[in-house]
Amino acid sequence: MKKIRVTIWNEFVHELAEEKIRKVYPDGIHGAIAAQLSAQPDFEIRTATMDMPEHGLTDEVLDNTDVLIWWSHKKNGEVSDEIAQKVKNRVLDGMGFIPLHSAHLCKPFTLLMGTVCRSKWRENDEKERLWVIEPSHPIAEGLPEYIELPQEETYGERFEIPAPDELVFMSWFSGGEVFRSGCCWKRGLGKVFYFRPGHEEYPTYYREDITRILTNAVRWAAPLAFTHPTLGYYPALEAIADKFEGQDDAARMHQNLY
Amino acid sequence: MKKIRVTIWNEFVHELAEEKIRKVYPDGIHGAIAAQLSAQPDFEIRTATMDMPEHGLTDEVLDNTDVLIWWSHKKNGEVSDEIAQKVKNRVLDGMGFIPLHSAHLCKPFTLLMGTVCRSKWRENDEKERLWVIEPSHPIAEGLPEYIELPQEETYGERFEIPAPDELVFMSWFSGGEVFRSGCCWKRGLGKVFYFRPGHEEYPTYYREDITRILTNAVRWAAPLAFTHPTLGYYPALEAIADKFEGQDDAARMHQNLY
Amino acid sequence: MKKIRVTIWNEFVHELAEEKIRKVYPDGIHGAIAAQLSAQPDFEIRTATMDMPEHGLTDEVLDNTDVLIWWSHKKNGEVSDEIAQKVKNRVLDGMGFIPLHSAHLCKPFTLLMGTVCRSKWRENDEKERLWVIEPSHPIAEGLPEYIELPQEETYGERFEIPAPDELVFMSWFSGGEVFRSGCCWKRGLGKVFYFRPGHEEYPTYYREDITRILTNAVRWAAPLAFTHPTLGYYPALEAIADKFEGQDDAARMHQNLY
Amino acid sequence: MKKIRVTIWNEFVHELAEEKIRKVYPDGIHGAIAAQLSAQPDFEIRTATMDMPEHGLTDEVLDNTDVLIWWSHKKNGEVSDEIAQKVKNRVLDGMGFIPLHSAHLCKPFTLLMGTVCRSKWRENDEKERLWVIEPSHPIAEGLPEYIELPQEETYGERFEIPAPDELVFMSWFSGGEVFRSGCCWKRGLGKVFYFRPGHEEYPTYYREDITRILTNAVRWAAPLAFTHPTLGYYPALEAIADKFEGQDDAARMHQNLY
Repeated sequence: MKKIRVTIWNEFVHELAEEKIRKVYPDGIHGAIAAQLSAQPDFEIRTATMDMPEHGLTDEVLDNTDVLIWWSHKKNGEVSDEIAQKVKNRVLDGMGFIPLHSAHLCKPFTLLMGTVCRSKWRENDEKERLWVIEPSHPIAEGLPEYIELPQEETYGERFEIPAPDELVFMSWFSGGEVFRSGCCWKRGLGKVFYFRPGHEEYPTYYREDITRILTNAVRWAAPLAFTHPTLGYYPALEAIADKFEGQDDAARMHQNLY
Repeated sequence: MKKIRVTIWNEFVHELAEEKIRKVYPDGIHGAIAAQLSAQPDFEIRTATMDMPEHGLTDEVLDNTDVLIWWSHKKNGEVSDEIAQKVKNRVLDGMGFIPLHSAHLCKPFTLLMGTVCRSKWRENDEKERLWVIEPSHPIAEGLPEYIELPQEETYGERFEIPAPDELVFMSWFSGGEVFRSGCCWKRGLGKVFYFRPGHEEYPTYYREDITRILTNAVRWAAPLAFTHPTLGYYPALEAIADKFEGQDDAARMHQNLY
Repeated sequence: MKKIRVTIWNEFVHELAEEKIRKVYPDGIHGAIAAQLSAQPDFEIRTATMDMPEHGLTDEVLDNTDVLIWWSHKKNGEVSDEIAQKVKNRVLDGMGFIPLHSAHLCKPFTLLMGTVCRSKWRENDEKERLWVIEPSHPIAEGLPEYIELPQEETYGERFEIPAPDELVFMSWFSGGEVFRSGCCWKRGLGKVFYFRPGHEEYPTYYREDITRILTNAVRWAAPLAFTHPTLGYYPALEAIADKFEGQDDAARMHQNLY
Repeated sequence: MKKIRVTIWNEFVHELAEEKIRKVYPDGIHGAIAAQLSAQPDFEIRTATMDMPEHGLTDEVLDNTDVLIWWSHKKNGEVSDEIAQKVKNRVLDGMGFIPLHSAHLCKPFTLLMGTVCRSKWRENDEKERLWVIEPSHPIAEGLPEYIELPQEETYGERFEIPAPDELVFMSWFSGGEVFRSGCCWKRGLGKVFYFRPGHEEYPTYYREDITRILTNAVRWAAPLAFTHPTLGYYPALEAIADKFEGQDDAARMHQNLY
């Protein structure tokens, strides 16, 4: 069985600095997500945190990651520009990328979006209802028509993102806001899914329904066997036709795959 | 000044049948909207109602309508199939179409969408906040970042529509629902804008902000000077090139316009 | 293994009426596609043709079809309105639908699109190059960056369709036209993939690359385990919350699935 | 009359370095476009070139630019990062941006797209046909169904861009390629239109039809009277409601506009 290699990255700051949050996530947010996703036999999971050398995202790790899940908040601005650029490039080359919650302001996401990605926010223990807008989307598979989170941080529109290719979830907050909470984009050869819930003070990532969403998202974002298109100088029709002379279709089809 | 010819269509049933609603809209919903929009010097406005011959939508009227605003509810199922088809065809040929509120279930809209277009609903005097999702969209011009309607009928997702080409407004309801309340689509050569607010019991269509939205929507939906594409049998490159021999670009550019 | 139940529908007229075409497709276009797709162990394939009672699309057949592939041309106008409506409804309820080539004018497709779906065309033995626009789309998996069909019928834009949710393939024709040849839409709970190639005079459907596309498209279009959203009257937040009292998340999650 | 302030930026290198190109554009590409657009009485036009201090894009210039047209090629990599970032930020704040031809690789465009934006290319004097895909789009207003450029540089897909919000033009090249040649995106509060034609060796920018497209694009991209959304910390419903107490709708509507 070909496994999907998932790397779960966490800045891992709140959990170390604040007793209240450590109680919720004693193994870190990355640890909680890893424990949930490890139930999938076809997922091969590793974690990485910001304090590791190269933030734990060495070339070796990135080259062997199919899908990168990313949680960050306080240290969004302190992630190395070089690493952020590497993550962006790896997405453009096919890696799936799933920024969570306050990672809407992380460097790799804003680099990929081309916008600032700010929103409204407040910490007010409000209720969130996450409505499924596209029930037939693979990321919504097996979900009820909405999920209710009794307490979450509130985010509100205007969310400064490019219009998503697909809008899967939309949130309602008891305080009066709405938010595009589950958004899909293609960027280069990679797929990006932003998912809103997951404030560090609440046990959101232990929920079965949230785990289902992350599991679905990993499968959706994992790279397929795609062809790298030729880029740059390209000769005309006849020259190209020659290139394949004497080859049958099957040979052509398999010569340039990922 | 070239005027935009706006026809405001209303089934005009609630206002005649119920004293309570007649008090809100003594001239009908169509009359209220007409009065509001008539402040625009470049709009030429007429109204039509379901009880008129051919529902007031004769060929003569449709051929001379640039944008059709449509309010309906109780009689959605009783609109003539022939008239519904004519409206659809006229949209495909360039007429703008703005179904309001419960007209999400009217025949021309569902014919144009290809889906059933149902949603959740309840009449519960809830508060609605209409959030602007795309502040730079022409239909959002001059609006604040949200509009609050103190009492409205509640609609909720899943709204059975094709993903809109552009999502301009999203509603929050105090009872727990969200809704894609301002949606743009192109269909054929015509533009469609669905706008949610406007339950018959509330004076929604007298509001300055709502009027602003409808005014913007009329301008956005009005047909431009487009070319009708050639359809059906079409000869190859050289034959076509001959067709324009000896003509300069300007002649070509103007020979096939709307 | 849960199988994907594929029904391949063909009007089956050209192959019976014309010796030249019968030579290309002695078992009909449906037979050729069925033979190609039958290599997939998880596909359960049946075929149906227009001359069968109810066009071979009885309730029993439709209820047991996950993905419907549809080839038609000469008889587009003679398909029963009732059957066309049933097919549309089944798509809205989750069935995948893959109209091929001249089926862009078949009734179920135009009903689902809401537009007339005409295009330019000519039969001129021109070369077609089918370019992959989105290499990371599941329907493009395993393909080279373009496919060349040495002779095909030419179609040209303007193709009267709603802007596709995803544009996967774009065709170039030697005579001077371009065409959006591989288009994805969601409609209701179902997925639609229009695919252009496959004129009856050419052995297009025997090709390995075309078979790969149809195989990918079937997997993409097959319905997932989605939830049917509640539609119509819907009580407010508190009432709904009661409904699930005492149930855990898992129970809620699984109670309303397809 | 409120004028649209257009700045036409050109790297202005080919025209100075090569006699052959200077003959085509003796006043520079920027000069040619400026001359064409100056026929519009509501356009206020200035030009800027790379050799000017701050590339001619000082804060004063950018702050007083509604729409920035940008031609570049050889010096794409040498544009100052600081200026590129300023241009990007100004777009996010509402300025329209129209990169032309080889400016698909300019820094501000790739920063806004989040992708590398490469494509295939060759200089082979091939014929280009620019097909109108969306005849009712404002940028296609007044155009025939296609435009033929007898000789142009060839570009080919895969074009590494995010799927455009709207695809207006698609090119056919005689050598066998297709290209998404007219693409619209919203980024932040600004609008971006990429337009492919305009190789420096051909008199493309003197054509009436190309001028029509650029004129339409300027009008489409010009910022409207939008509201800057509140971003960052945001108090809850009741607190916000207080803010407007005693104000009527009109006051609210006009207090936060561009």
